[in-house]
Amino acid sequence: MNTFRIFSDTSFDEAAASHLEKGAAPHEIIVPKIKAASVLDAPEADPSFALAQIAFGQPDLNSIRSSSTLKWIHLSTAGFTRYDTPEFRAFVKERGIVVTNSSSVYARACAEHTLAFMLAQSRLLPQALQSQTENGSGEWLALRGGSVSLFGQNVVILGFGGIAIQLVKLLAPFEMNITAMRRQPRGDEGVPTVTLEQLPEALAKADHVINILPDNAASQNFFDAEMFAKIKPGAVFHNIGRGTTVNQEALLEVLLNGKLAAAWLDVTDPEPLPPTHPLRHTANCHITPHTAGGHANEPLSLIRHFLGNLKRYEARLQLEDRIM
Amino acid sequence: MNTFRIFSDTSFDEAAASHLEKGAAPHEIIVPKIKAASVLDAPEADPSFALAQIAFGQPDLNSIRSSSTLKWIHLSTAGFTRYDTPEFRAFVKERGIVVTNSSSVYARACAEHTLAFMLAQSRLLPQALQSQTENGSGEWLALRGGSVSLFGQNVVILGFGGIAIQLVKLLAPFEMNITAMRRQPRGDEGVPTVTLEQLPEALAKADHVINILPDNAASQNFFDAEMFAKIKPGAVFHNIGRGTTVNQEALLEVLLNGKLAAAWLDVTDPEPLPPTHPLRHTANCHITPHTAGGHANEPLSLIRHFLGNLKRYEARLQLEDRIM
Repeated sequence: MNTFRIFSDTSFDEAAASHLEKGAAPHEIIVPKIKAASVLDAPEADPSFALAQIAFGQPDLNSIRSSSTLKWIHLSTAGFTRYDTPEFRAFVKERGIVVTNSSSVYARACAEHTLAFMLAQSRLLPQALQSQTENGSGEWLALRGGSVSLFGQNVVILGFGGIAIQLVKLLAPFEMNITAMRRQPRGDEGVPTVTLEQLPEALAKADHVINILPDNAASQNFFDAEMFAKIKPGAVFHNIGRGTTVNQEALLEVLLNGKLAAAWLDVTDPEPLPPTHPLRHTANCHITPHTAGGHANEPLSLIRHFLGNLKRYEARLQLEDRIM
Repeated sequence: MNTFRIFSDTSFDEAAASHLEKGAAPHEIIVPKIKAASVLDAPEADPSFALAQIAFGQPDLNSIRSSSTLKWIHLSTAGFTRYDTPEFRAFVKERGIVVTNSSSVYARACAEHTLAFMLAQSRLLPQALQSQTENGSGEWLALRGGSVSLFGQNVVILGFGGIAIQLVKLLAPFEMNITAMRRQPRGDEGVPTVTLEQLPEALAKADHVINILPDNAASQNFFDAEMFAKIKPGAVFHNIGRGTTVNQEALLEVLLNGKLAAAWLDVTDPEPLPPTHPLRHTANCHITPHTAGGHANEPLSLIRHFLGNLKRYEARLQLEDRIM
């Protein structure tokens, strides 16, 4: 068997780093001299990169372009905005470089986060957890009567990848009417799937709109005033994709004028939103700080997923979560 | 067909009252002169009760005892503490009075509320919704790393009635290890069911403990210091049954000393807890004001459920949610 040099630029603690090293053996793990502070910062170029056949983490574009040895990039995130350009896609295609991401690692946690949002809204948890009202009061009747069962409601999911697949599984017992939107439906979605052209009809019936769109040129400001206007009055908007896909001024407007019942956002633009941002002071806007994909032992599950793909790579099998 | 006089003591608005009257025709609806302020208050005796064959609502015990015409009581709640005594059970048995409740009406909403609690805890929503931290910070890593997937976790459900049946359905996609506790397992629970004697073993492994025990002589203070001591450290305790089944001083202690990760309570004793009660000032104690069973159009669904049972009563079929 060939042995590979694997460039790994994620800051793992000692136990995780050791797990990676042992799990990858006999292949060699190369760590950069300069560690990235956050996976969302573009790391600087590192000279040891030039020796690697495999990159695991968030390799920088210049290093990738100047490498003559690289064969496979496994990104440590589900998002891949920085790499999602026609130029980069053409480049890796020409060089025969395979690109995978870690979407499976985050999909389950993101789907659970989304269902937590949906149920927290439908059970009015933000209001109920603040209330100290007595049984039978007007406030009590309003909380009880304002709680809405998810059963039989209409959901529209935009962006049908790993998260959506997991979410559809979690929603199954609620017997919801789920519609997915995909620019090019493939027919294997397992739920009715509409194109962009058919989206307005679905939005007009939606009780919950789940935005899982990735960030790319086509999705920037996807939810603008015009798109929000197509959504059924009283619907709930969720964003667990990327903040840049939403025009936040337009969102603020439909939250303030009551067109939307509420928004639940795990992503914003920028992150974090400044404390003075009006969405932070809008009662029906609920924001978590990009924690949807997080889960206990995340580094370990990232490493396990990579090692699983490494076994497949050795065996020349199809890699999981291939994106390019 | 016989026509019946139906005593209905619930304060419905005009539309709901009209729906009941039309749906019940040709039977006659009798409303009391004195309306109950809350379903949890014992209403006073009403002279028109003596004419009724059927009582729908929360009929008072004296009226029931002095009636010579009553054949069927349909309670407008899921809980029935006031009626759940050996004396009352013996009385209705002797008089041939059938007693049903409205548990089906509330079961679905209660199950959704419970899953909302479980997911809000596992995704750390109370903390994450307050956080304005930036990606990569220590707080951010703690929120992400502290989020726990429900997948494969252990759940113990105490009190296996309509709510538990609905909850088990909602939990199915999470592939959790569910154990039910029932004083007398019937074998038709659909999940492994233990007796009181086998409970400690189940509690020792539980990640989530779901208390749906009804309030009766055997369940008062069921969760005391000794019972809490049996629960796996770090578990989450949920109460959507009745507040009286929990010793709140003992609960406070295991929340403060970190033995339990958190408690999510929809019921307390008393309701509401006074603003000064220490559980109100315990960060890992989350309280909703007995809203779990609430849902949009609750009066209408109560009436629909009663009318469904009325059709069965006319046809001499088995009634739904029969409790005595």
